[in-house]
Amino acid sequence: MKKIAVIMGSASDLPKVQPAIDALKEFGVPFEAHICSAHRTPEEAARFARDARANGFGAIIAAAGKAAHLAGAFAAGTTLPVIGIPVKSDALDGLDALLSTVQMPPGMPVATVAIDGARNAGLLAVEILAVTDDELAYKLAALRDDMKKKVLEKDLELQASL
Amino acid sequence: MKKIAVIMGSASDLPKVQPAIDALKEFGVPFEAHICSAHRTPEEAARFARDARANGFGAIIAAAGKAAHLAGAFAAGTTLPVIGIPVKSDALDGLDALLSTVQMPPGMPVATVAIDGARNAGLLAVEILAVTDDELAYKLAALRDDMKKKVLEKDLELQASL
Amino acid sequence: MKKIAVIMGSASDLPKVQPAIDALKEFGVPFEAHICSAHRTPEEAARFARDARANGFGAIIAAAGKAAHLAGAFAAGTTLPVIGIPVKSDALDGLDALLSTVQMPPGMPVATVAIDGARNAGLLAVEILAVTDDELAYKLAALRDDMKKKVLEKDLELQASL
Amino acid sequence: MKKIAVIMGSASDLPKVQPAIDALKEFGVPFEAHICSAHRTPEEAARFARDARANGFGAIIAAAGKAAHLAGAFAAGTTLPVIGIPVKSDALDGLDALLSTVQMPPGMPVATVAIDGARNAGLLAVEILAVTDDELAYKLAALRDDMKKKVLEKDLELQASL
Amino acid sequence: MKKIAVIMGSASDLPKVQPAIDALKEFGVPFEAHICSAHRTPEEAARFARDARANGFGAIIAAAGKAAHLAGAFAAGTTLPVIGIPVKSDALDGLDALLSTVQMPPGMPVATVAIDGARNAGLLAVEILAVTDDELAYKLAALRDDMKKKVLEKDLELQASL
Amino acid sequence: MKKIAVIMGSASDLPKVQPAIDALKEFGVPFEAHICSAHRTPEEAARFARDARANGFGAIIAAAGKAAHLAGAFAAGTTLPVIGIPVKSDALDGLDALLSTVQMPPGMPVATVAIDGARNAGLLAVEILAVTDDELAYKLAALRDDMKKKVLEKDLELQASL
Amino acid sequence: MKKIAVIMGSASDLPKVQPAIDALKEFGVPFEAHICSAHRTPEEAARFARDARANGFGAIIAAAGKAAHLAGAFAAGTTLPVIGIPVKSDALDGLDALLSTVQMPPGMPVATVAIDGARNAGLLAVEILAVTDDELAYKLAALRDDMKKKVLEKDLELQASL
Amino acid sequence: MKKIAVIMGSASDLPKVQPAIDALKEFGVPFEAHICSAHRTPEEAARFARDARANGFGAIIAAAGKAAHLAGAFAAGTTLPVIGIPVKSDALDGLDALLSTVQMPPGMPVATVAIDGARNAGLLAVEILAVTDDELAYKLAALRDDMKKKVLEKDLELQASL
Repeated sequence: MKKIAVIMGSASDLPKVQPAIDALKEFGVPFEAHICSAHRTPEEAARFARDARANGFGAIIAAAGKAAHLAGAFAAGTTLPVIGIPVKSDALDGLDALLSTVQMPPGMPVATVAIDGARNAGLLAVEILAVTDDELAYKLAALRDDMKKKVLEKDLELQASL
Repeated sequence: MKKIAVIMGSASDLPKVQPAIDALKEFGVPFEAHICSAHRTPEEAARFARDARANGFGAIIAAAGKAAHLAGAFAAGTTLPVIGIPVKSDALDGLDALLSTVQMPPGMPVATVAIDGARNAGLLAVEILAVTDDELAYKLAALRDDMKKKVLEKDLELQASL
Repeated sequence: MKKIAVIMGSASDLPKVQPAIDALKEFGVPFEAHICSAHRTPEEAARFARDARANGFGAIIAAAGKAAHLAGAFAAGTTLPVIGIPVKSDALDGLDALLSTVQMPPGMPVATVAIDGARNAGLLAVEILAVTDDELAYKLAALRDDMKKKVLEKDLELQASL
Repeated sequence: MKKIAVIMGSASDLPKVQPAIDALKEFGVPFEAHICSAHRTPEEAARFARDARANGFGAIIAAAGKAAHLAGAFAAGTTLPVIGIPVKSDALDGLDALLSTVQMPPGMPVATVAIDGARNAGLLAVEILAVTDDELAYKLAALRDDMKKKVLEKDLELQASL
Repeated sequence: MKKIAVIMGSASDLPKVQPAIDALKEFGVPFEAHICSAHRTPEEAARFARDARANGFGAIIAAAGKAAHLAGAFAAGTTLPVIGIPVKSDALDGLDALLSTVQMPPGMPVATVAIDGARNAGLLAVEILAVTDDELAYKLAALRDDMKKKVLEKDLELQASL
Repeated sequence: MKKIAVIMGSASDLPKVQPAIDALKEFGVPFEAHICSAHRTPEEAARFARDARANGFGAIIAAAGKAAHLAGAFAAGTTLPVIGIPVKSDALDGLDALLSTVQMPPGMPVATVAIDGARNAGLLAVEILAVTDDELAYKLAALRDDMKKKVLEKDLELQASL
Repeated sequence: MKKIAVIMGSASDLPKVQPAIDALKEFGVPFEAHICSAHRTPEEAARFARDARANGFGAIIAAAGKAAHLAGAFAAGTTLPVIGIPVKSDALDGLDALLSTVQMPPGMPVATVAIDGARNAGLLAVEILAVTDDELAYKLAALRDDMKKKVLEKDLELQASL
Repeated sequence: MKKIAVIMGSASDLPKVQPAIDALKEFGVPFEAHICSAHRTPEEAARFARDARANGFGAIIAAAGKAAHLAGAFAAGTTLPVIGIPVKSDALDGLDALLSTVQMPPGMPVATVAIDGARNAGLLAVEILAVTDDELAYKLAALRDDMKKKVLEKDLELQASL
């Protein structure tokens, strides 16, 4: 199976990124997690992006806050799908990271998820691999069933409590 | 090769969606385009989503404006990757469609591209197929080379004009 | 008397939704409260909406946060008045939920109240029933008198304290 | 049948409000349209609101731009459902009118529709009357069928054109 | 000397309004403070506004949050200068109150100060009275001197601490 | 009678400022209009502000766009009431000018009107003078009557046209 | 004298960037203008940034729209001052480019000017060179005098026209 | 070596400004820090700006919140580079200060850094001095190396922890 790369711009982003890692583990999808900065280690970022396909990666998840260039920098260096997680930081409630991640120019898509939406980033990576992996697709469907069941159970609990 | 579904919420969105279709044609990726509304034809949308994987689709592109629920509605009905295009309409400069598309709750990812970013939606769909399709991956790399060459040529033209 | 449905997208929204329930209780309006998700239980949501009128409901209140599609999904499935409560969540201070709820396309109205405005959602449902129910109308007028009296009392207290 | 009041803050808002009037005509719902300003004719507005129920109105639609107080002023004066249409004007792309209309304090609901969403305001008024009017409910369902058919037809046209 | 009216929409706004009252006390300007709501006590508000000039008021300060109509309602009822204080509440960081207060239509000015800017509202009222009151003007100038001195002193302290 | 100063940051702002001048003329209020920039002619601005009271001015209207510092610069130099008009320019729909004008720090009020709200700035200046000028107050009341009549006439026209 | 680099992300940005070039010409400051993209030609951008100081540049001006990463990419590659021009494009009125340019993380400053503020970018570059170049400093002061004179002349014209 | 001026509008801004001072100390760049207000001490600000070049300053850093005029006021008085730090205060999450600082009119550049981006303001000042100071340039490059090393170390730690 292809691996997923999970890149964060700074070590302090790890708690925000963890749900993406957890989602990958949940599905048994191999991954590597790295701290790599578009601005502080641009050469490493460029090299990682350039070699990602050859190194067996199927998609790259990149999380960054503020003027969040990380996902875009990876998108510039690879034709693998790049998934961007805008991370909310101190000001502007994450709007800066969202716009910096999603408003990419034509030719360089970044698949952007919600602000601090790391779990969805992980699931989207699984969905991408599942396009040609029936077992993963089956597990994704099972998760949906599970999510549905939990809503129905919670509704039953609510009925009981009213 | 898997097909890509290109869904728009209304016939009037076609010009905004066309660049996605053009990108798919450019790469020889089979596709279907449909007008299908989360609100006016919810059952058709749900059925299309449910059957999409079995019908040979590899990803779904959904474009909508205002309170743009279309991509989310498809995401609810399939575990295929769903790519959302927020369409700018009369008010709020597209911010409404962007937030309605990207801010999906945990468990239901929508891979959101820029406001009116249809070309990137098409390219992202190609990238997703290219994860396991070396020929598409090669063509994507060639497009990047071409984009790079055009920038270099434009720069040469600028140097000549200064 | 018609019943009011109070739907929340997730069990964690209950505290935000409670003031709507309280308002209905205050007026002796029958209601059902449910947890039902546009994305995780779309079929249940569609069925509930479709059958709501036949099941004796007079209006549906739907509360959701982020890319808040719940009210719109109900509006798509019924011609009963649907009242949307945008719920503020972690990022963007509720603007995402507000725009996702209120900016509905032509043909599918959602009667949107303020961000976290559950009490007003409950009162609006009462007002809708009161259009043809003089006793409810009388009670609504009495509440207004009461609200007015409280302001006047508070003003007197302020005069005394100055 | 109860009448619907359609109030606009200024004569220049008529083109923005017309789709609400058209929707009411489409459904054969009796209505009155008035120009009435929360600021320039506050007494007339207060009187109209106070007497609206007695005068046979079932709901009030109020449209205004900028610091849009009109719907709120009517809500203060009646316990009938008040539907607010935020009108986009020269600056801020309608955000000012939206927030001034929707962010009502507890106790005074305004059922807010989209910016320049007059058609939905008209339809919401019909839905409110239809809670206890089976013929109107039937017509609303027929309109939904019609909307659905138009989407399906447009989709067929698209298929033919591809 | 003319009196200043300080109106707040709800008793809970008093801590936000207090700096306006303090500024008036500081300048020995007579004032009345009232709780009065544009929506819950609209008649009282209208009457107060209508009689304000005859009752010896020189300006009205009105503070409200969310869809803040209070200052506008007073502006509609008097030709005295009305000063609006947008009060920040739970959502949208005060932007709703700011736009609802400042974006008044032509003909009905509201002199708007900063979000939670009660002290400036009080000082603006003093400035208005000081247009024809040399003693107040003198005191205002003295306050400015004092503010200047404090900055210079703080700068000296900073120099000493570096 | 005190004069009103109407200051604009650049000659190109004159059309945006003209309604303020027209309002002053309408009321026979003496005024001076000046082009004066907080950034390009700061000394002239400071001198004008410092001497404004002694030179017979009763209030200063200042209009500027973008990072609109003009009103604040005048507020810093005088204790006369300063009225700020945020002027909408090329980007951000006037939000930049609004926030730069209204969000003044404690101690330095700017009485801010709507974006491009020059007529209200003129009327507010008249209201300020009218605090101690019964004839102006009478004229203001007459204008309100006139505005009211126009609304009522427009409403009659609308009734005739329906 | 050091040269200034003027970089634009796309040939279509030239009209927006031209005022920066014109400002440099006005001051006789040598410059190079280039089309260079953070995403399409990242290696060229990185190389240009890395060698800029050795190649005699004193500052880099970078203009880009949407998710504007260009200035940040240059900042990552050089310790020369990098001046960012956020370019307004089709959606969001330039807010996306502004936040993507200015909200840089600690360690990587970008000196950001106004949206479409190319002339100021050019002047800021001149100011940077003028820190150690008295002749440029003298010319800058002369430009200020000239700007001041023009305001005073415009004011005289206005006085004549009133 | 030229000195850097670090100006804050109020003593309470010192903690926000401290990282700029720390950066200057880190590089051994001489500086002065002052409290100086565009509104409370405009003459002192104007004088400081006017004399800054003659007094041996090479750049001015100015930090202010809300309607942040401080950097602009300094820019008006000097042709030295002025670096603006928008300070986040109680409302609007710093957007007011950002727009008031960055949206300067043509002719008066302010080099704006991120909201509460004091460290980058300090580093930008160092970069400006380093244009003609090889030792500073060398130290800046060393800092970059250090920042890079820290990212690589953190990445190694992450690898070890996975």
